[in-house]
Amino acid sequence: MDQNKEKIDHIRHTLAHLLAAAVLAKYPDAKPTIGPTIDNGFYYDFEFSTPIAAKDLKDTEKSMRKILPSWKEMKGSDVSAEEARKIFKDNPYKLELIDEIISKGEKITLYTAGTFTDLCRGGHVENPSKEIPADCFKLSRLAGAYWRGDEKNKQLTRIYGLAFSSKKELDEYEVMVKEAEKRDHRKLGKEMDIFDFDDEVGPGLAMWLPNGAAIAEEIEKLGKETEFAANYARVKTPHIAKDSLYLKSGHLPYYEESMFPPMEYEGGKYYLKAMNCPHHHKIYAARPKSYRDLPLRLAEYGTCYRHEKSGELFGLMRVRAMNMNDAHIYCTEEQFASEFRAVNEMYMKYFKIFGIDKYIMRFSTHDPKRLGEKFVNEPELWKKTEDMVRQVLIDSKIPYIEVPNEAAFYGPKIDVQVWSAIGREFTLATNQVDFAVPKRFNLEYTDKDGTAKTPLCIHRAPLGTHERFIGFLIEHYGGNFPLWLAPVQVKVIPVAETHYEAAQKVQETLRAKMIRSEVDLGNDGFGKKIRNAKNARIPYFIILGDKDIAANKVTLESRDKGQIGQLDMEEVMKKLEEEIRERK
Amino acid sequence: MDQNKEKIDHIRHTLAHLLAAAVLAKYPDAKPTIGPTIDNGFYYDFEFSTPIAAKDLKDTEKSMRKILPSWKEMKGSDVSAEEARKIFKDNPYKLELIDEIISKGEKITLYTAGTFTDLCRGGHVENPSKEIPADCFKLSRLAGAYWRGDEKNKQLTRIYGLAFSSKKELDEYEVMVKEAEKRDHRKLGKEMDIFDFDDEVGPGLAMWLPNGAAIAEEIEKLGKETEFAANYARVKTPHIAKDSLYLKSGHLPYYEESMFPPMEYEGGKYYLKAMNCPHHHKIYAARPKSYRDLPLRLAEYGTCYRHEKSGELFGLMRVRAMNMNDAHIYCTEEQFASEFRAVNEMYMKYFKIFGIDKYIMRFSTHDPKRLGEKFVNEPELWKKTEDMVRQVLIDSKIPYIEVPNEAAFYGPKIDVQVWSAIGREFTLATNQVDFAVPKRFNLEYTDKDGTAKTPLCIHRAPLGTHERFIGFLIEHYGGNFPLWLAPVQVKVIPVAETHYEAAQKVQETLRAKMIRSEVDLGNDGFGKKIRNAKNARIPYFIILGDKDIAANKVTLESRDKGQIGQLDMEEVMKKLEEEIRERK
Repeated sequence: MDQNKEKIDHIRHTLAHLLAAAVLAKYPDAKPTIGPTIDNGFYYDFEFSTPIAAKDLKDTEKSMRKILPSWKEMKGSDVSAEEARKIFKDNPYKLELIDEIISKGEKITLYTAGTFTDLCRGGHVENPSKEIPADCFKLSRLAGAYWRGDEKNKQLTRIYGLAFSSKKELDEYEVMVKEAEKRDHRKLGKEMDIFDFDDEVGPGLAMWLPNGAAIAEEIEKLGKETEFAANYARVKTPHIAKDSLYLKSGHLPYYEESMFPPMEYEGGKYYLKAMNCPHHHKIYAARPKSYRDLPLRLAEYGTCYRHEKSGELFGLMRVRAMNMNDAHIYCTEEQFASEFRAVNEMYMKYFKIFGIDKYIMRFSTHDPKRLGEKFVNEPELWKKTEDMVRQVLIDSKIPYIEVPNEAAFYGPKIDVQVWSAIGREFTLATNQVDFAVPKRFNLEYTDKDGTAKTPLCIHRAPLGTHERFIGFLIEHYGGNFPLWLAPVQVKVIPVAETHYEAAQKVQETLRAKMIRSEVDLGNDGFGKKIRNAKNARIPYFIILGDKDIAANKVTLESRDKGQIGQLDMEEVMKKLEEEIRERK
Repeated sequence: MDQNKEKIDHIRHTLAHLLAAAVLAKYPDAKPTIGPTIDNGFYYDFEFSTPIAAKDLKDTEKSMRKILPSWKEMKGSDVSAEEARKIFKDNPYKLELIDEIISKGEKITLYTAGTFTDLCRGGHVENPSKEIPADCFKLSRLAGAYWRGDEKNKQLTRIYGLAFSSKKELDEYEVMVKEAEKRDHRKLGKEMDIFDFDDEVGPGLAMWLPNGAAIAEEIEKLGKETEFAANYARVKTPHIAKDSLYLKSGHLPYYEESMFPPMEYEGGKYYLKAMNCPHHHKIYAARPKSYRDLPLRLAEYGTCYRHEKSGELFGLMRVRAMNMNDAHIYCTEEQFASEFRAVNEMYMKYFKIFGIDKYIMRFSTHDPKRLGEKFVNEPELWKKTEDMVRQVLIDSKIPYIEVPNEAAFYGPKIDVQVWSAIGREFTLATNQVDFAVPKRFNLEYTDKDGTAKTPLCIHRAPLGTHERFIGFLIEHYGGNFPLWLAPVQVKVIPVAETHYEAAQKVQETLRAKMIRSEVDLGNDGFGKKIRNAKNARIPYFIILGDKDIAANKVTLESRDKGQIGQLDMEEVMKKLEEEIRERK
């Protein structure tokens, strides 16, 4: 964990204690239970003898600020079970926790600040009064929560607090949350006719309406162009396969619970594919390979199907069918570092195109103690590939954190985290190094010396899935897609009915160059038409009135930059085509 | 049936009699059973007392030619059951047929030519000796065949004959068959690494190798460009849906046996989609529509899955997963004719691009007597749409035949038949008019007068499925794909190792313009490299030797036109890019 992250976690943890102290000061018979930290702050669950209301939180928050200056230190001490039980004798929840700690043979520690003592494992700031700014936190809301998350237990009252290192960060966070609500991909997706779900089709199965399909097609085009330039070969594979394929790959039985159930067919079982790799391995194996064929980079925008619990489905962010920018790179050990570097460079290229300024790679490595159990038993390959991955990350100056013991079974893994324009974090994609599965598929190449060798395989998907990536982009752009991605790129607006014909000609000119456009021939007044186009977040409007037609020109207006002026249609086309081609 | 077709059918039918006469002349105790006509000739099944061999066919054929001049007429006569039984008393097969005719209450007719009489319903030429050229037929092969196709019955010997109206046509047919063998899409598909099947993935599930995916992507690009120009909107839908969708569409239970079996999921059933229409109807219904939204043309290269018996699978021609150039056009009755005309124009455009010179549309209409039973009970809509379809076909001068009583349940249907360059017939695609299903889905639009109306729907797929169309194209082009479609478009061949670097630069120039190219840096000699490129049917080779490099030029050679000459790389690029863009 990096230092900043540790610091803020300590602040949040300390504030959870402070919340409990403030609650007890005001409600002496409340029973505090547990109070962990979370992503944006902390919470604490209490049993109250009489219910409290959201409006009561302001007082409690004030009380926290009043107590804070008196908390000059957080002192920890080990106590016996007996002592602990005595201290918490009126609190059955704490008593249960104490029993649990003892049953595990662990030590019982208490932490005291000011006059308040809590059962706690530690991890606080040393001097709360000095280290916690009084304005860096806020109690945010109340919620019900069952003790230990089990609905058979008593329902408790949870108090949430937001907390950061400074007021500035807290304010920024609150602005971000407000902005994120406005940009919610489900809300904008509906408003902008991007996608839809239908009960008769099935939950978690997104249908892309024309506006969404336009975005998806543009992203695919980008992926295909980029992969063509990087010498990938495209393939196309079916969405189903017999169980024999998944038994060979090991998805069955290990991954079965994440897959859709099988179809019983012709005396066998057919599964929807949950990943593209087994099909790609089959394509590798369809023809004999020599070292001259490597690296072989097989790419496909394949659709995979995964079982997600219906309660966990969430807009485009968690779905059951996903269209993935997938590819598998088969290479020799010698080629691995440069292939992996090229994959990272592709990420960087995409980040630039989409204006993603903040990102980090989470590099998960193996634990040598768990070789042959959690991790495939290839100690040298693990060391070699992890060293290479690490070196490439360092050389390419890519921000990364290393997470031991979280690699995949068959090789090191990299999760790519990105932040949207308003500062929300998303997991975009995962890269994996695979030195076990190619062997299961008997994938081989004949090396220079005539011997048969097994290639390494890199799984990569820099643009993630259409579902998640477009969900991210909706928030990232707040619906204001750049010209090349916008579902409707240009709206042609005739000022009056006498300009309809000219407007339709303009649209034909746009269409001939594959520019997505609409012409507004409806009954609304001119002002209303302009407002409608603006509300629809269309990047450019071409306006046609008497003056334009007299001058044989059009008036161009931009969503983002306002009026551009009267231009020749040729100039307009040049400008638009360049902006689209360069994906500005 | 058109006249030519009837004439040739009568010739074939007469020749079947002649075959039986010739067989009986040589093998008096042979028992003729049935002898129908087929696509390229006729056959007759016999029980022989001693087996005959293929080499015996020549003699029989000669004997047919000897008998033919004596057949001046074919005379039919009705006979009683008793008479018929007497004539065929030694032939249990004919006796069985006679019983069957009687049980149906039909008349028994015999036909006699020369000294030979057969049980027959008629349909011959009037004067065989005059109307059948002696060199227009040929006995082609022997095969085993069970009586009535039932393997529980006795195995008979089937003698096949080829027959056409003239020797010229017969010769052309034989050349075509030989050429078709050379061009067999399964053979070329393997040789050219276009597609593969794998037992562990499943029969009938084609995997497109990079060469095949390149072709498929080019066809998709063509489809998307053409549909964009014609103002279609693209959508993307999942490959599965709940049974509720297919119960609504009527696929369940009526079409269930053509579908894959369901997945039991979350207490319901999910099916692989066998057609895209239900999903598209859902997209139509996702937002309210007004007359201003119509015509709405929703397009998708959707993958559908259908159950085909494993014995009926055949290369790419009959598969279980197919990627379809699908679209559904929702329109008003007033818009129907022009929409249908535009669909036909799109076909014509494609035929021109692919050099398809011979085609016909099979227009299936309803039978008014079977309204409400085989055909949805909308007499006026049937009449109106069929009249419109017929008029458009006539106006557009498209060759068509009308087939009564073969429409789909919900509207008239058009099957598009095309002939490959070597004259083989393929069913490419089906268009359907649908005025029943939109109602089942409650699809509506608000008309000008504010009332809710149901749109018509046209199902169309001019490029058929990737599988069938690419299978057709492999034969049509004999593997010599035009530049724009060729999996590898250009091979760069350095004369010697000193030219490798220059060759790689040339490839980079090609790649920057998305031209699919390979550079041959292998150990083969120059001559071998040229031969390899020719064998791989690559449209262009760029050769780089000392003279080229000294002149800062390259030498361009074409697969089809041979040496083109030494050119600037700029000229080469201009030429190639134009040829690709214009899909020459």
